[in-house]
Amino acid sequence: MRVKGTRDFLPEEMILRQQVLEKIKSIFEVFGFQPLETPALESWEVLSAKGAGGEEILNETYNFEDKGGRKIGLRYDLTVPLARVVASNPNLNLPFKRYQIEKVWRYGDISKGRFREFLQADIDIVGSESMLADAEIIACAISVLNSLGFRQFFVRINNRKILEALIKYAGVENDKVMNVFRIIDKLEKIGIENVKKELKEMKISEDSIEKIIELIKIEGEPKTVLEKIEKIIKTEGIDELRQIISYLEKMKVEPKFKIDLSLARGLDYYTGPIFEVFAEKGIGSIAGGGRYDKMIGLFSGKDIPATGISFGIERIIEVMKERKMIKSKKSNVKVFIASVNEKVRDNVLEIVQLLRSNLISADYDLRSRSLSKQLEYANSLEIPNVIIVGEKELEKNCVKLRRMETGEEILLKLEDIAKFDFT
Amino acid sequence: MRVKGTRDFLPEEMILRQQVLEKIKSIFEVFGFQPLETPALESWEVLSAKGAGGEEILNETYNFEDKGGRKIGLRYDLTVPLARVVASNPNLNLPFKRYQIEKVWRYGDISKGRFREFLQADIDIVGSESMLADAEIIACAISVLNSLGFRQFFVRINNRKILEALIKYAGVENDKVMNVFRIIDKLEKIGIENVKKELKEMKISEDSIEKIIELIKIEGEPKTVLEKIEKIIKTEGIDELRQIISYLEKMKVEPKFKIDLSLARGLDYYTGPIFEVFAEKGIGSIAGGGRYDKMIGLFSGKDIPATGISFGIERIIEVMKERKMIKSKKSNVKVFIASVNEKVRDNVLEIVQLLRSNLISADYDLRSRSLSKQLEYANSLEIPNVIIVGEKELEKNCVKLRRMETGEEILLKLEDIAKFDFT
Repeated sequence: MRVKGTRDFLPEEMILRQQVLEKIKSIFEVFGFQPLETPALESWEVLSAKGAGGEEILNETYNFEDKGGRKIGLRYDLTVPLARVVASNPNLNLPFKRYQIEKVWRYGDISKGRFREFLQADIDIVGSESMLADAEIIACAISVLNSLGFRQFFVRINNRKILEALIKYAGVENDKVMNVFRIIDKLEKIGIENVKKELKEMKISEDSIEKIIELIKIEGEPKTVLEKIEKIIKTEGIDELRQIISYLEKMKVEPKFKIDLSLARGLDYYTGPIFEVFAEKGIGSIAGGGRYDKMIGLFSGKDIPATGISFGIERIIEVMKERKMIKSKKSNVKVFIASVNEKVRDNVLEIVQLLRSNLISADYDLRSRSLSKQLEYANSLEIPNVIIVGEKELEKNCVKLRRMETGEEILLKLEDIAKFDFT
Repeated sequence: MRVKGTRDFLPEEMILRQQVLEKIKSIFEVFGFQPLETPALESWEVLSAKGAGGEEILNETYNFEDKGGRKIGLRYDLTVPLARVVASNPNLNLPFKRYQIEKVWRYGDISKGRFREFLQADIDIVGSESMLADAEIIACAISVLNSLGFRQFFVRINNRKILEALIKYAGVENDKVMNVFRIIDKLEKIGIENVKKELKEMKISEDSIEKIIELIKIEGEPKTVLEKIEKIIKTEGIDELRQIISYLEKMKVEPKFKIDLSLARGLDYYTGPIFEVFAEKGIGSIAGGGRYDKMIGLFSGKDIPATGISFGIERIIEVMKERKMIKSKKSNVKVFIASVNEKVRDNVLEIVQLLRSNLISADYDLRSRSLSKQLEYANSLEIPNVIIVGEKELEKNCVKLRRMETGEEILLKLEDIAKFDFT
């Protein structure tokens, strides 16, 4: 009955997701990013604007006519809506640092485990052409992954300006550069031989292909790589990366970054530094972004520089679950109040009310069940504390508290309940 | 460029919304409700199921065919998806108490100030036929509004069983009862004369109309109203309300509720107690719900009792803003670190890093602006603290801290920055 490629998140899953998202959000805010939300529905005009997501993604975009005959669609990312927001709010304070954690929709191939409705988390800095902004984005991404408990990830950095210069240096004509970007971007997925094959199909000479492959393989310490390239080509892209690296060092960001000249990124709109975060082997990319100084101008008519990164939240959560980096629980309830029989139901309500008015999450039986059934229910929801209300104990103004994990039982005075530490 | 009836929420609005939603969520959790999320996309089969939302709402539902030719739509509420989830998860622990705070979509009349994409917050209890469950829902709703700072609201309670018995007692035939519900539901909106008119158009006799009007006008203390009705009709609905009221008293819920026999609720699926929360005059309904013991059975083939309420979040936020019940701010940033000139930029980065690693939200200049422009920016974002980094102070291992609200300036040692209380 559920739409293919969509999911329900039951409480156990939701509690886990909320934990991850809260952590991410808090780091975004520590770095000075402010929240933004935009509608799920965008006009087709915006989604299909030249220089926005591009043709490939539009093929996967849900779209339809509303009752007024206007063509609209469900957003496929959070960057295009940001560009629209900036363009239509000319009085925004710049730089505008915003985060957005919302769902996007793509009609992808579900046989490959892709979802059609999934969460993205983006941070972007609009209105700064300084490489400080790119360093901020990278530093924040690294901080987010550190705080989530990732250890062996690293950030690959490149610059479209460098890649473009290298490709041209290898003898490729101007009008084929973007296509070469797209083919190189697939290197991880399809392997070197297929990249060569696709380049050949593009009618790029054998000689050029060999040169490209050789150039993008240059490896080493960031500074060494930049020196090597500098001997081959001239572009401000080299100095841009040098600045980013120096800023990251000053920010005391652990050197979890390296220059990877084979990093291309698939989208058309990048104009400068690009970056992608990789977890250990087998997981691949978990976040990616870069600088796009021309996209907002497409909506506003006036170029405004921007840079940002998008986190693949679904993959991050998946990995964290697989590696048990996060503990889930079935319920957030701290105390279940059980009654030994019908006679004490009113006392149960009083205790529930007492706990709740002290903002302690409390629940009780709504089905007139036996004590053992109530305990079974509390146990199945992994509620850590059960207060058992019985007549005998009530006579002494007490209740029994059972710590479910240890089985330990404590006699608790009624007057002490509200102050008790149930954690 | 934005789709009609949709909104962007810029940081100032978002920070305010997040505050309200966090409060609501925390009270939901104190009452033992657990989070659930379902997809925005639902199959048309589910949305249009008999006994779900009904024809009127389907006329306002966005729908389209996906690329596989399946008819799907955007959910118009959170109750129908809940029914689907319960039906397709037969092993759920019952009672299932869930909350869901997500967007819904309706193609409504925007000239009446209606939005086409808006937030709802629902709590429901599935699997308890006890009136305790209904009392829980009402108590939680009252607690939510209290915690948000509402004071003069009240809950109107009625029971479909009572209303049905009264309508039949007035001489209306069985097959017209539901239509009479729908007409009475409009009483607030269209007034008594129009209700009479519409009832007449339904071919209900003058005599019956007079009787209905007279009966639904019965007012007074809850217990008195129930006694009065009991002399006229017999239905278990009377005892149900009596139980709810007695439970609410035991839960020490302030008597912010009254029995209103003219409350009908527009949706078909209610089967027992119904309730609606009204703020003071002029605002009208801000939450509404009731018991629907038959809806889940439509999906699962097996009746499972359920009751719940839906909060009109957009209206609640609107009212809270109008009445200044909530303070907004333009940014969550606690400290802006300004530099007097280019020479101290590295020191700025060090201080920023220090604050952030201590989880203090910090920001700084990304545009190489003059000190006065930096202060202007910090001021326009209402950032409460500005650290001014100057060479003179640095020589003494100090920086200047300006409290923006008072203008007070403090000399702060570098080693004390991380421990300082910036709130």
